[in-house]
Amino acid sequence: MKITRLSHQKVSLRRSIDTGTTEQRNVVQSIIQDIKENGDSALFSYTEKFDRVSLSELRVLESEISQAYKELSDELIGIIREAAANIRSFHQKQKRETWISYDEDGTMLGQKITALDSVGVYVPGGTAAYPSSVLMNVIPAQVAGVKRIVITTPPTKQGNLPAGVLVAANELGIKEIYKVGGAQAIAALAYGTETIPPVDKIIGPGNIYVALAKREVFGIVDIDMIAGPSEIVVLADDTAKANEIAADLLSQAEHDKLASSILVTPSMKLAEEVNAEVVKQLSTLPRKEIAEASIDIYGHIYVTENLSTAIATVNELAPEHLEVITEKPMDLLNEIKHAGAIFLGRYSSEPVGDYFAGPNHVLPTNGTARFSSPLNVDDFIKKSSIISYSEKAFYNNASKITKLARLEGLEAHARALEERLK
Amino acid sequence: MKITRLSHQKVSLRRSIDTGTTEQRNVVQSIIQDIKENGDSALFSYTEKFDRVSLSELRVLESEISQAYKELSDELIGIIREAAANIRSFHQKQKRETWISYDEDGTMLGQKITALDSVGVYVPGGTAAYPSSVLMNVIPAQVAGVKRIVITTPPTKQGNLPAGVLVAANELGIKEIYKVGGAQAIAALAYGTETIPPVDKIIGPGNIYVALAKREVFGIVDIDMIAGPSEIVVLADDTAKANEIAADLLSQAEHDKLASSILVTPSMKLAEEVNAEVVKQLSTLPRKEIAEASIDIYGHIYVTENLSTAIATVNELAPEHLEVITEKPMDLLNEIKHAGAIFLGRYSSEPVGDYFAGPNHVLPTNGTARFSSPLNVDDFIKKSSIISYSEKAFYNNASKITKLARLEGLEAHARALEERLK
Repeated sequence: MKITRLSHQKVSLRRSIDTGTTEQRNVVQSIIQDIKENGDSALFSYTEKFDRVSLSELRVLESEISQAYKELSDELIGIIREAAANIRSFHQKQKRETWISYDEDGTMLGQKITALDSVGVYVPGGTAAYPSSVLMNVIPAQVAGVKRIVITTPPTKQGNLPAGVLVAANELGIKEIYKVGGAQAIAALAYGTETIPPVDKIIGPGNIYVALAKREVFGIVDIDMIAGPSEIVVLADDTAKANEIAADLLSQAEHDKLASSILVTPSMKLAEEVNAEVVKQLSTLPRKEIAEASIDIYGHIYVTENLSTAIATVNELAPEHLEVITEKPMDLLNEIKHAGAIFLGRYSSEPVGDYFAGPNHVLPTNGTARFSSPLNVDDFIKKSSIISYSEKAFYNNASKITKLARLEGLEAHARALEERLK
Repeated sequence: MKITRLSHQKVSLRRSIDTGTTEQRNVVQSIIQDIKENGDSALFSYTEKFDRVSLSELRVLESEISQAYKELSDELIGIIREAAANIRSFHQKQKRETWISYDEDGTMLGQKITALDSVGVYVPGGTAAYPSSVLMNVIPAQVAGVKRIVITTPPTKQGNLPAGVLVAANELGIKEIYKVGGAQAIAALAYGTETIPPVDKIIGPGNIYVALAKREVFGIVDIDMIAGPSEIVVLADDTAKANEIAADLLSQAEHDKLASSILVTPSMKLAEEVNAEVVKQLSTLPRKEIAEASIDIYGHIYVTENLSTAIATVNELAPEHLEVITEKPMDLLNEIKHAGAIFLGRYSSEPVGDYFAGPNHVLPTNGTARFSSPLNVDDFIKKSSIISYSEKAFYNNASKITKLARLEGLEAHARALEERLK
């Protein structure tokens, strides 16, 4: 890994966002148009073209779910249930309630909280079809109270879906699962087809075509943030163990050649030890090729003047995952401004949060932790303002409001109040 | 207005979203590129081209603000202050706090709440440069704790800004105001120039070029929902007064020829009376031409079988503004699922909320109240998950987590935990 001594230079994780080539944008626009016009028949033909399988049904059958259970051990199913319970428990603590406040003059103001009616979860295909993604995307929506939750995911060439994904979905009670991927899945979720009724919000990661399609339908439906490559930043001091940090950096690097693994430390000794451990541990990893490419290009160790400048560097990076492995990690929490998830102490290794502890693993990437949050229950509710003005409040304030309306040249606004004064 | 008897047919407010022509998209992309490359000098030249004024400074001077105060009466300034206090009070009730929960095994999990560092508010020019927009966009960000809040707005041909906008901004303590409009303003806020440091989030409405630029920079910065034309739906029964409803419908219609004003009522008598009143009141409005075009094309009265089907129609419409003027409006609140702001009772005329009561007037349009909320304090904070696993929790759960990691084929994830078991 590159080791850089930082004194006052600024660092950034931000990479330019892939908004697609003109050709890719045109392809996505024409797919969306085709789905709007031709519905299911267009879905079948894109599935044949892109996923190389000719399906007779888009929707997953009960028999496929029973089959999936046979492929997983009872122990694993039990662990999936326990993880789901932990995730549910953490998200239940986020629930918010409608509130109304009462003024002395009889005015009532408030916020009414309502769950979205329907949500579509896109689960990518191939090696990225993770059961944990199903749990992390579906459970917050369920806790919010969303009634209809749909999963779409591309089928294999044999027309199947991964057993882990089907079991995780079934454990959560999700019955509406479609074998559709790509931009065509996003178009179907946004506009609906004969088989797939439209949803109000689409979440979940995908390739560039999926990301571009989400950008296109944003406004017709809501979408989540468009995810970039994954990152980890470890903030550590001399008390940390190099082998543990190296292993955590590699767990990020194995995701993707574009993933970024960074250590920020005031200790040159730790920096050098971690670097040596990364080389050693890398050699025996099954996904060595991916992890090595990631570490070579996007791996970095920054050695800072002291712990305080190390924290400043972390805030500049605004990482998706931040591990704080220092003598007193909890003491630093207040100074950390920008991070998707903050893992405190040596026992809070990132995979603990990826799978099991309860907080969401869908996190803001590419420095967007400056303004975005982990996926959470608020993403599946909306608020309506409540305004109930009393007669007294109205008579006390009507003339002020008409003056503001006339300052803005909106006479009909002023007259709407004056009709009530007649 | 068109009067339609509804029995079981569905209705919708949704209109297709204007995502621009290819030419418009290309113009926006080239403006953004130009600002990225040439900064301030490109800003000056676009301002000359589009706003037809040659500026010597982008930033508003103290002397311009003092001048603006001379143009407004003390009474009006006092009313602006009172409105600001009401808006601040309502938004303060939305504030959320960091929380941490403790498990028996020593695990700590939680959500850390942090304000965004910086926000840019786009205020459109011309007749739509409203002081109330400044209050409604800036105050929630201030309540959230955002330190740096910037306003950009296009200058007039004389190089000025409207006095009301400058006074409202100054009353809130906003010192960073730039005379820049259009796609170039959005690009400057997202990427920064010599004079304008970049921000983390851009909010506020604008024309098609502003909207397209916001779509382009989404991901580099956060944006708010892209607003469509404004709408009001009035849900009323026989107890409502036709002249008041007509006046409220017209207050919406005067905004924009594309605005939509709708009455939903089980009473044909009320429908006919409101229709007659709209014609009568329209004739003397200063913005008659705009209001008339809006009423003719997008105005509608739906007469339903009963109050319950009227509510179902309202939920299908998911209006931006909903007035409930019935015998017992509060009793219907629970049944209303989708609306940006709900105005209850005859004294809660929409302009009360537009200017003064306290809830935000930036609301989800075009049926997006199905999944979006009024602008609120949550739009200016982000959450970081906190995960602190205890030694005990780690040893109890590590082997389960490694099994989940291996189910997903992520060996380095499993080994990250096993390094700690050595």
